[in-house]
Amino acid sequence: MINKNYFNLQSSYLFSDIAKKVRAFKAEHPDKRVISLGIGDVTQPLPQACIEAMHRAVDEMASSDTFRGYGPEQGYDFLRQAIADNDYAPRGVKIELDEIFVSDGAKSDCGNIGDILSADCSVGVIDPVYPVYVDSNVMAGRHIHLLTTVPQEHIDIIYLCYPNNPTGAVLTRQQLKAWVDYALREHSLIIYDSAYEAYIQHDDIPHTIFEVEGAKQCAIELRSYSKTAGFTGTRCGYTVVPKELVFDNTPLNQLWNRRQCTKFNGCSYITQRGAEAIYSPEGKQQVKATITYYMENARLIREALSQMGYEVSGGEDAPYIWLKTPQGVTSWQMFDTLLHEAALVTTPGVGFGPSGEGYVRLTAFGRREDCLEAIERCAQLKGE
Amino acid sequence: MINKNYFNLQSSYLFSDIAKKVRAFKAEHPDKRVISLGIGDVTQPLPQACIEAMHRAVDEMASSDTFRGYGPEQGYDFLRQAIADNDYAPRGVKIELDEIFVSDGAKSDCGNIGDILSADCSVGVIDPVYPVYVDSNVMAGRHIHLLTTVPQEHIDIIYLCYPNNPTGAVLTRQQLKAWVDYALREHSLIIYDSAYEAYIQHDDIPHTIFEVEGAKQCAIELRSYSKTAGFTGTRCGYTVVPKELVFDNTPLNQLWNRRQCTKFNGCSYITQRGAEAIYSPEGKQQVKATITYYMENARLIREALSQMGYEVSGGEDAPYIWLKTPQGVTSWQMFDTLLHEAALVTTPGVGFGPSGEGYVRLTAFGRREDCLEAIERCAQLKGE
Repeated sequence: MINKNYFNLQSSYLFSDIAKKVRAFKAEHPDKRVISLGIGDVTQPLPQACIEAMHRAVDEMASSDTFRGYGPEQGYDFLRQAIADNDYAPRGVKIELDEIFVSDGAKSDCGNIGDILSADCSVGVIDPVYPVYVDSNVMAGRHIHLLTTVPQEHIDIIYLCYPNNPTGAVLTRQQLKAWVDYALREHSLIIYDSAYEAYIQHDDIPHTIFEVEGAKQCAIELRSYSKTAGFTGTRCGYTVVPKELVFDNTPLNQLWNRRQCTKFNGCSYITQRGAEAIYSPEGKQQVKATITYYMENARLIREALSQMGYEVSGGEDAPYIWLKTPQGVTSWQMFDTLLHEAALVTTPGVGFGPSGEGYVRLTAFGRREDCLEAIERCAQLKGE
Repeated sequence: MINKNYFNLQSSYLFSDIAKKVRAFKAEHPDKRVISLGIGDVTQPLPQACIEAMHRAVDEMASSDTFRGYGPEQGYDFLRQAIADNDYAPRGVKIELDEIFVSDGAKSDCGNIGDILSADCSVGVIDPVYPVYVDSNVMAGRHIHLLTTVPQEHIDIIYLCYPNNPTGAVLTRQQLKAWVDYALREHSLIIYDSAYEAYIQHDDIPHTIFEVEGAKQCAIELRSYSKTAGFTGTRCGYTVVPKELVFDNTPLNQLWNRRQCTKFNGCSYITQRGAEAIYSPEGKQQVKATITYYMENARLIREALSQMGYEVSGGEDAPYIWLKTPQGVTSWQMFDTLLHEAALVTTPGVGFGPSGEGYVRLTAFGRREDCLEAIERCAQLKGE
């Protein structure tokens, strides 16, 4: 027998639908140059420090004296130490190495974390939402609650993503504390996705949920190098499961460790050396330069659209701009107009959930010249 | 609530227990050089063709013109084509590209495949068995049947691994056909792990289950580059889910595709270029040389132990030698003796299941000089 919960999934994945429409448009208009502000994929190369580290690691694999076979399922200590020292210690958060689980990316961890949780758990997500939170839980047969704020009722597991995908919104420390307080009071589990924390520009916005007191007792944090350092195709991320975290009378750190040891065999050694280099002085500088580049794209797009009279949010501490469609225009209508009239790919907000209706998401991950041309095309469209 | 099935797992993982004992021995005897014929990890470097391909791929990631972001969740076509053309076509098996799912390794696929199957399925494994088949199903709450041969009763899902880990046994085409016939008759699903197929030396042993007629209607095949090309630390494998395979009235290819698109984001581009190079003329030659090296280790170990009067099997079409312990000696006793008297690490057969009691597993993945010294130490132990 198969897992019948799969029949409850929506028939296809948002980004596949978009890709299909874009393919059809390109086939009809082979002369038009399509610019994508759609799927959140990066365009800038890996930091040079990562390139050099991976070359060295590849060379190590070429000699039996330096060859590396199976690594620790949880990741090498050299990377876990760099994570603890750079992503947490400077923010006053002490994370021990055996609380860090390196993986082939946050999407895998986000999909797999449900393995250790009961199918009976209720799940709350903030609508609009990254589809993986919903789909992976539908696959497990869990009931999903679409939330817009801290709920009144009890919910077992809450997914939070800040800076937010798709809206680009952030939470202040006080707003995040309201969620932690809720989870502590309700004995709920928060799964906190901070894949975009590197884009935070304002000093008072927390980069990790563990900056909030008590969060170690109620939260798991997912991190990714995809957007931080262009690792979307290189695949590396990590998950922090604090040892203080007890859910349903069970320390989740041990459970996740068992899951990973049984169903995962660690992330590529070469990739982990690449990730380690992100934390070198050169790596940090290079990462910062790339993020500055993307955030300048975000500023240009945000300001231009705003000047054209569009209502926009996000893009200040996140690489996503959330554009309100004109009155009476649906997300998919706006998507179609931008595709057909301006050869621009966006992501319809409704694809992220019902509260996304009436919005499209734009990403700042393009090349500068493409962003500028996209703005120009929007201006022309508006002027017509 | 947590997934309570985890409480039904045996308290720890076989190889962790072994590692603990070895650490203790080393701490007590810092002067002794421990040789491991235990965990099945390779020692020879990656093929030079893979090294060169990965260097090129790393360089592609350094320039925005050749940079690769998100790849297909199912793997790049360049690798899927190489797989179809080299692993299947020459054996008369036609596999289409969308039947191949590239991943970060067979352990992940083996652990995750249960996602698409109901928790109500009965599972049959051949005792002794690779622990992941059992543990991943216990985690899902499935009932496990330990089999030694084709069963009389109905079982929903059967795991087969040939060449076998741990025993090194292989199945003839006729023996494999008996399983396929059973699955077709019972509408069962076979999960066929052929991670060690590259070690097959005899022409009449099938390398893939799809060489058997009807297998595409009842089997999923797992493949790994870990043992073929030393990818244990580089992480790449693939799973073939034929489109003809219908289980519980549902095409599993679509289900697995959905699972991978939702919970996985593809294998590293750099790694996939490395894997592709395995199929180049140089890559094939280099892989063959390494496998010849390991199989010569296997022959040396097998023949030496046999001459010492031990009963051994395996090691002819597989990198594992299955050693029967002397009368009245348990697996763990034999393990302890070899560790304490000869500083040799083996794997107790009982760790793989009750029918493994009275055996230890030796691997041929060591360096030649270590294999020779291990033989020498065994001879001395025997002579005492």
